[in-house]
Amino acid sequence: MQALITLTTDFGTRDAYVALMHGVILSICREARIVDITHAVPPQDIVSAAVMLPAVARYFPPGSIHVVVVDPGVGSERRAVALEAGGSYFIGPDNGVFSLIWEQADFSQGSGSRRAVALTESRFWLPDVSRTFHGRDIFAPVAAHLACGAKLADLGPPVTDLLPAPVPRPVRSGATSLDGEVIIVDHFGNCISNISHDDLAQLGTLAEMEVFAGEQSFGPIRRTYAEVALGERLALFDSNNRLECARRNGNAAASFDLRVGSPVRVRHR
Amino acid sequence: MQALITLTTDFGTRDAYVALMHGVILSICREARIVDITHAVPPQDIVSAAVMLPAVARYFPPGSIHVVVVDPGVGSERRAVALEAGGSYFIGPDNGVFSLIWEQADFSQGSGSRRAVALTESRFWLPDVSRTFHGRDIFAPVAAHLACGAKLADLGPPVTDLLPAPVPRPVRSGATSLDGEVIIVDHFGNCISNISHDDLAQLGTLAEMEVFAGEQSFGPIRRTYAEVALGERLALFDSNNRLECARRNGNAAASFDLRVGSPVRVRHR
Amino acid sequence: MQALITLTTDFGTRDAYVALMHGVILSICREARIVDITHAVPPQDIVSAAVMLPAVARYFPPGSIHVVVVDPGVGSERRAVALEAGGSYFIGPDNGVFSLIWEQADFSQGSGSRRAVALTESRFWLPDVSRTFHGRDIFAPVAAHLACGAKLADLGPPVTDLLPAPVPRPVRSGATSLDGEVIIVDHFGNCISNISHDDLAQLGTLAEMEVFAGEQSFGPIRRTYAEVALGERLALFDSNNRLECARRNGNAAASFDLRVGSPVRVRHR
Repeated sequence: MQALITLTTDFGTRDAYVALMHGVILSICREARIVDITHAVPPQDIVSAAVMLPAVARYFPPGSIHVVVVDPGVGSERRAVALEAGGSYFIGPDNGVFSLIWEQADFSQGSGSRRAVALTESRFWLPDVSRTFHGRDIFAPVAAHLACGAKLADLGPPVTDLLPAPVPRPVRSGATSLDGEVIIVDHFGNCISNISHDDLAQLGTLAEMEVFAGEQSFGPIRRTYAEVALGERLALFDSNNRLECARRNGNAAASFDLRVGSPVRVRHR
Repeated sequence: MQALITLTTDFGTRDAYVALMHGVILSICREARIVDITHAVPPQDIVSAAVMLPAVARYFPPGSIHVVVVDPGVGSERRAVALEAGGSYFIGPDNGVFSLIWEQADFSQGSGSRRAVALTESRFWLPDVSRTFHGRDIFAPVAAHLACGAKLADLGPPVTDLLPAPVPRPVRSGATSLDGEVIIVDHFGNCISNISHDDLAQLGTLAEMEVFAGEQSFGPIRRTYAEVALGERLALFDSNNRLECARRNGNAAASFDLRVGSPVRVRHR
Repeated sequence: MQALITLTTDFGTRDAYVALMHGVILSICREARIVDITHAVPPQDIVSAAVMLPAVARYFPPGSIHVVVVDPGVGSERRAVALEAGGSYFIGPDNGVFSLIWEQADFSQGSGSRRAVALTESRFWLPDVSRTFHGRDIFAPVAAHLACGAKLADLGPPVTDLLPAPVPRPVRSGATSLDGEVIIVDHFGNCISNISHDDLAQLGTLAEMEVFAGEQSFGPIRRTYAEVALGERLALFDSNNRLECARRNGNAAASFDLRVGSPVRVRHR
């Protein structure tokens, strides 16, 4: 079966950077199949990529190889790693981008379900490694070799400590409130918070909660956009079970001046 | 032969939404081949997607499965459908996006060449269907099952009435004029109207017509951009035989303040 | 083995133009594999595409077919060509976009390593050729036929003179300075010049040089971004060995008002 490699970067698609990674992979492992996740991670935004990755891993087939290159430390002493967690593989810089994947594998399936290695075996890299583009020169070729038969353990020595990502956690504020913040503004202007369905279930009955973001009430937690009139504010869980503040058929971020970091509060009424 | 699935959405490529559809498809039907048409349909712009679809169907191989998710009604009672029309398959919400495909199949090849079903058989969906992302949870898995052997009739009961799209039609204005409007502004700033070559053939001799858009004359109908000097206005038929107002090596929309909805008039001189 | 076709255009990805090229290729050569290099070449910017192409050719497997459609002269008398150079194939308008590929093949491997033909054999095109979209109607089908067994010599008669691209060359200014300019501003705001590592090796010892761009000194030539503090200016060779002026974890172009054409000077201290 064709191995499947996905690519997530902050390279944009204006230049040929991403395409060169495709070329390198196909030069080493012609039968690999490549899917671009996104190349519009905000430049050097490790949190944003870290938060996106668990959903990607969940919806791709087991055994997929996910390459993530958001790499502000390229060329410095930062470590490069490959890991297997929850049945999928991940390759990239060790800068926190894999932290949620790593923690969830430990939590959900026991420590046997995860292992990591440092990328030190240069025979799996391109012969000439630049100082500025390890996506092309190290991560893409390592992924291609893994796709075409190399074993994780071949790539370098085991490591057990990965760097954490600075993903903010929601905090309780008194007995009846939870304070979080917007961590992603998506293409539609929907404002996705760091508050999960599970976080709120611990606070009380969902039907009795009211959601605030910035200066506005977004009302109770809805089940679907269509529960409010066109142009109205609403709150609901997004497709990954995170609380989202939205405007029906509109752009909540632009309309209500919300951005990454804007406070989101849920109050038990 | 590998089945071919195309994706057209208004999801953008900044988030991982589109990629999750790829992952779902490949998890169900690993050998399917996926082509992204565009994910930059203006948010919730059903007309724009409806107008784009006939050209897509025409230039892809017969049997291709075209998934279109421009879905402002997601989570409401709007129907989900799959159809076969003119030798290709189409999957998405029943909100008008397939109306031109549906009408053209009827017109060009007789009613035998088209059929549609409502998507009700949940065994072809993901086990957990969210309220906000049917692209991932219903449309992608249905396409994957169709690509890997399910029959159209398996997906749900037949339907015969599809919702129309509010695509504006050009109107005659006296004996010598036809009034249309800009329906697409493309990447180059070319302004494509709802006036087709056939519409104008009914008005008279093409060589005797003059085209106006906004406040400007765009002159007679040309055959190629190169017929006018750099920077000059011109009108010509686009690669899908729709009348287009352009500026040679320039951006007509920005230069002449044209946008979707701007009037386009053709006058027989 | 599956043939590999890459696509580089200035079409953007908002419209379906690029996707129609995919559809045409797959209709003719279903097993071809297609990789999008970029569709965000600045509209009609031949230099930008010409400069990008050697790196693309270098990192893709031998035998790849690179289609480049940056084609301001579409519909005029400009010639369409296909060439083999350095082991890869190239297809597109003869407007200078292949000039660097053509020159390098001559220089590096002798004249036997390159040949070109004019595209005149219309049996390899779509039956109806529009005046405005040769990417879909000529270049994509020619690439597909080449991928599925046609020979270069079948496509049309040989040509030996290709149009040059107006890529600026750096010039010596006295014994100790080299004057170049910014030719690409990438997604990160890095400003890539037309000065190569080889150009500077002829000027003297790299460790004794200082780089200036616009009104600013970017200091000596560094080996990696991490050699300077966050937010600091630096100069280094990019991943294709061209001198680049950057700002660590920042956008040099926006910060220092640099753009394509801004002067870059290197001075031997």
